[in-house]
Amino acid sequence: MRFTVLPTEGVFYELFAKSAGHLVEGARLLGTLVEEGGDTEELAVRMKEIEHRCDEVTHEVIRRLNSTFVTPFDREDIYRLASGLDDVMDDMDAAADYLHLHKIGELPPGVPEQVAVLRQAADLTAAAMPRLRTLKDLDEYWIEINRLENVGDGIYRRSLVALFDGTYDALAVMRQRDVVEQLEAAIDAFEKVANIVEQIAVKES
Amino acid sequence: MRFTVLPTEGVFYELFAKSAGHLVEGARLLGTLVEEGGDTEELAVRMKEIEHRCDEVTHEVIRRLNSTFVTPFDREDIYRLASGLDDVMDDMDAAADYLHLHKIGELPPGVPEQVAVLRQAADLTAAAMPRLRTLKDLDEYWIEINRLENVGDGIYRRSLVALFDGTYDALAVMRQRDVVEQLEAAIDAFEKVANIVEQIAVKES
Amino acid sequence: MRFTVLPTEGVFYELFAKSAGHLVEGARLLGTLVEEGGDTEELAVRMKEIEHRCDEVTHEVIRRLNSTFVTPFDREDIYRLASGLDDVMDDMDAAADYLHLHKIGELPPGVPEQVAVLRQAADLTAAAMPRLRTLKDLDEYWIEINRLENVGDGIYRRSLVALFDGTYDALAVMRQRDVVEQLEAAIDAFEKVANIVEQIAVKES
Repeated sequence: MRFTVLPTEGVFYELFAKSAGHLVEGARLLGTLVEEGGDTEELAVRMKEIEHRCDEVTHEVIRRLNSTFVTPFDREDIYRLASGLDDVMDDMDAAADYLHLHKIGELPPGVPEQVAVLRQAADLTAAAMPRLRTLKDLDEYWIEINRLENVGDGIYRRSLVALFDGTYDALAVMRQRDVVEQLEAAIDAFEKVANIVEQIAVKES
Repeated sequence: MRFTVLPTEGVFYELFAKSAGHLVEGARLLGTLVEEGGDTEELAVRMKEIEHRCDEVTHEVIRRLNSTFVTPFDREDIYRLASGLDDVMDDMDAAADYLHLHKIGELPPGVPEQVAVLRQAADLTAAAMPRLRTLKDLDEYWIEINRLENVGDGIYRRSLVALFDGTYDALAVMRQRDVVEQLEAAIDAFEKVANIVEQIAVKES
Repeated sequence: MRFTVLPTEGVFYELFAKSAGHLVEGARLLGTLVEEGGDTEELAVRMKEIEHRCDEVTHEVIRRLNSTFVTPFDREDIYRLASGLDDVMDDMDAAADYLHLHKIGELPPGVPEQVAVLRQAADLTAAAMPRLRTLKDLDEYWIEINRLENVGDGIYRRSLVALFDGTYDALAVMRQRDVVEQLEAAIDAFEKVANIVEQIAVKES
């Protein structure tokens, strides 16, 4: 009987890995814009495609969660983790959207540094997801994510000071701030994912 | 014994219907402003009255939830649904408030379209609540709400572009954006309600 | 065996009291700035220290929650209450941060009144935490917090009208609004804590 149960449980791990894979893709897309420049409309369109695929994974988790009797860990935690990963995607998508809608030419202060943090956080998260199976070696993941979130905080604060230092007019400040705040929200959302993983590990081990 | 249990369970369905009814009222009130114009102070006062009545329903749900032993579906889901409906009301109330506090004369770009979406979403939600009893025929409800949320997204984006196109000064942009964002939040909140209903239906059926 | 269980349960009450104690400290620090003025950089640094200590308490609650078998009330409610208290701290910390980063000289309209409300709310919350043990005499606490939240709402609205009345340029409005909104968020967060306490009391008594 256990044989029929285990494959179903395994699906959740695969879906979390898939979801985190989309976050890596999204962060890389932002990285390409920072490094090579490019059309923000195309960026927004491609990010929306990734976001749709990530959305489908989240729905798949919730659908399976509601129709599966045995789950690898608390239903509530599975739901939180799936939603947490999805929230990161939504924030990156919103940032790409603002870059396009606000016709941002030059990147606002801090954005390249924020994107570098996002890429590292996405890679770490994707690498951690398979370790949920054994719940081993997760400490370094959340310690590093917490460090990155602190780095992100510092970047955000310096960016805010730069935006308000008199260089830009009020409308430009508003436009650029929209981008910077969504990227900061994405970094914070990675930390929330790490906190959920930490809670699962403490509870289940 | 079951006889004493069933009426109590039924109360939850009635309270959800009542809460959704207040959302219909709120959306209609915004509709009247769009179609006939009128005093935004009076609008804000009347919206606050509806919001207070909606609040009382939410508290009644939570009170009964905490004192009832048998509930029609997961306690956590009942709590989420009640809070979700209440969140829509809070967003519509905040929008009415900003219209008044910011002394908005002419409606910001996109607002009439947003209000039309809100009215449809409120009607659909109110029509869906009684169907929670049987959990039947709910698919069309959440598919249509998801469609409306996408429509709302497009309106919001066009409104944002219009606000920043150079027509308005920065203070006017801020004022109008407050209204547009709260209405967009209300549309999003209707989608969250539909997602909760979908989860309940999948889980219970 | 029960003997080993009871002391563990008691730890949660102590941690909630400790967390609320940090909120009292934070609110007092804001009070000192309002009454005596002072360096906002120093304010931000000291607030961050309090926030770190509050954070440690929250982590301690979650760690114990996940490793404790018997809890004084629903695990989910313990988690909600700990997070709720932490949210208040984060909002006060963000307000102090904006005061410093935005180099706010004169306090924005409404801020002294908001801080007075925060101090009362923090004192009430700290006084209520020990009463969680018996779940008695909590009514007056949440009724008073709800009243304070309404007072805060009125202050916030008047502050918003004052900010947009033409006295300040757009960048100054944005800067000051950041502070006012975080303080308003802190007041709202106190109300959420009171709502969680109310729910626990109704459920457990």
